[in-house]
Amino acid sequence: MPGYRFICPIQVRYGDLDPQGHVNNAGILTYIEQARITYLQKLELWNGTSFLDLGLIVADVHVSYLAPIYLNQNVQAGMRVSRIGNKSLIFEYALEDGATHTPLAKGEALMVAYDYHQKTSIGVPEDWREKIARFEGIVAHS
Amino acid sequence: MPGYRFICPIQVRYGDLDPQGHVNNAGILTYIEQARITYLQKLELWNGTSFLDLGLIVADVHVSYLAPIYLNQNVQAGMRVSRIGNKSLIFEYALEDGATHTPLAKGEALMVAYDYHQKTSIGVPEDWREKIARFEGIVAHS
Amino acid sequence: MPGYRFICPIQVRYGDLDPQGHVNNAGILTYIEQARITYLQKLELWNGTSFLDLGLIVADVHVSYLAPIYLNQNVQAGMRVSRIGNKSLIFEYALEDGATHTPLAKGEALMVAYDYHQKTSIGVPEDWREKIARFEGIVAHS
Amino acid sequence: MPGYRFICPIQVRYGDLDPQGHVNNAGILTYIEQARITYLQKLELWNGTSFLDLGLIVADVHVSYLAPIYLNQNVQAGMRVSRIGNKSLIFEYALEDGATHTPLAKGEALMVAYDYHQKTSIGVPEDWREKIARFEGIVAHS
Repeated sequence: MPGYRFICPIQVRYGDLDPQGHVNNAGILTYIEQARITYLQKLELWNGTSFLDLGLIVADVHVSYLAPIYLNQNVQAGMRVSRIGNKSLIFEYALEDGATHTPLAKGEALMVAYDYHQKTSIGVPEDWREKIARFEGIVAHS
Repeated sequence: MPGYRFICPIQVRYGDLDPQGHVNNAGILTYIEQARITYLQKLELWNGTSFLDLGLIVADVHVSYLAPIYLNQNVQAGMRVSRIGNKSLIFEYALEDGATHTPLAKGEALMVAYDYHQKTSIGVPEDWREKIARFEGIVAHS
Repeated sequence: MPGYRFICPIQVRYGDLDPQGHVNNAGILTYIEQARITYLQKLELWNGTSFLDLGLIVADVHVSYLAPIYLNQNVQAGMRVSRIGNKSLIFEYALEDGATHTPLAKGEALMVAYDYHQKTSIGVPEDWREKIARFEGIVAHS
Repeated sequence: MPGYRFICPIQVRYGDLDPQGHVNNAGILTYIEQARITYLQKLELWNGTSFLDLGLIVADVHVSYLAPIYLNQNVQAGMRVSRIGNKSLIFEYALEDGATHTPLAKGEALMVAYDYHQKTSIGVPEDWREKIARFEGIVAHS
């Protein structure tokens, strides 16, 4: 998937389908979340178990639905951080068919750095900037 | 909820909660869908049973998450059509706490008029324009 | 609903439906969970917010599906504790159509008393026995 | 997984987790459904797309929860038909950790042969008996 260094395969479930026979629109957010959670672990920004240390809260999402997603479809989710701000990050994502490369959905999410212990937003930690910038090949402007 | 003539109560479920103890971000789209589906039935644009006659497909959604939603919270979803185009409609929505009127989420969805029998987009039917314009007190520009 | 002192209304969602146009079989467990969680709060066995104090873990469930559940159906969930053991309780439940009283599903769940702080099963607390026995009109055998 | 000729890997999602930090009890039914749907396609009992031809409806399920399921866990679902009756089949299933072989859940489902076009139960088709009996190495008693 051009432009994405991180790709997460998604297993489409019968339980994701709605009466129209394709994946329900809300399910796409679950796919995107799955890719984001996997990305965080891949970059060692979260350990996958201590939920109060997750470090991000969703502030804003946008999804464009480009094609229906069906059962048994080979869905690949691309995920990248496109911008690192003082207290937030922008994640961009795209879903495509892994076999035909048909675009299925795309969008972005504004994620705010968050301390679930203190229940307050925080600055993006310095090591996050470094790890993400290194992985993505972007410049972290703090 | 000022600006909304249609309000749909939402029952928050334990099953909507994620490890952070509040409603998962994808669940908000399910709430919004529920309000939209109820709106369509209220205005007699859909009968609630024949899914191939549903008449709309989601093209694009945007959600701003304004406050966490908790179990037992009295959630009210406002839903309105703000624009009727040739082949699509814009639905605007807002979630708030029914007791405190705290805003919880807001956003909009671009819905394309769709014929699930023929699997093709269609023009917004004339009776939809009339019913929506009458309910919302807006001018339907076709 | 004869035999049930606790009834919880369930809001059927479009998001609960599967390609067959009725509520997916897994969704029934979510409905039952919702009734159980509400029951626990009604009897003041849980406060609804501190999840480590929830006090029960599911060990075993059984569901009989008696009729399909549709969108807009008026679903009522009956919930009762039928037996209080040393370390577990049996919850019985039934779903019915609130208008026609058609039975929709029924079953039971074996719930083990559990301390999520210590991650260990515990004895059923004495005040649980008293509160449940009083509400249900049963004898708590410890 | 001893005793199972059909194994389906399950991708655990963040969206499956509940406030206790493990997969919600209702999610297990979704996993089991996914294994069953995949089994039906593997044995060419369903083509994966025409939902009115699915041929089975859930009558009764039982699940024993043996261990919590966590994010990132390697979950394998075993699925088999243990009995073929005149109008129904019994599916047995087990979930285990693919790395440690720790049992996670097990149970069975009574599935009734069903014609969604006519909305009526039917006899188990003869070719189903043959295909299942051949795959499972069991005797189909009709």
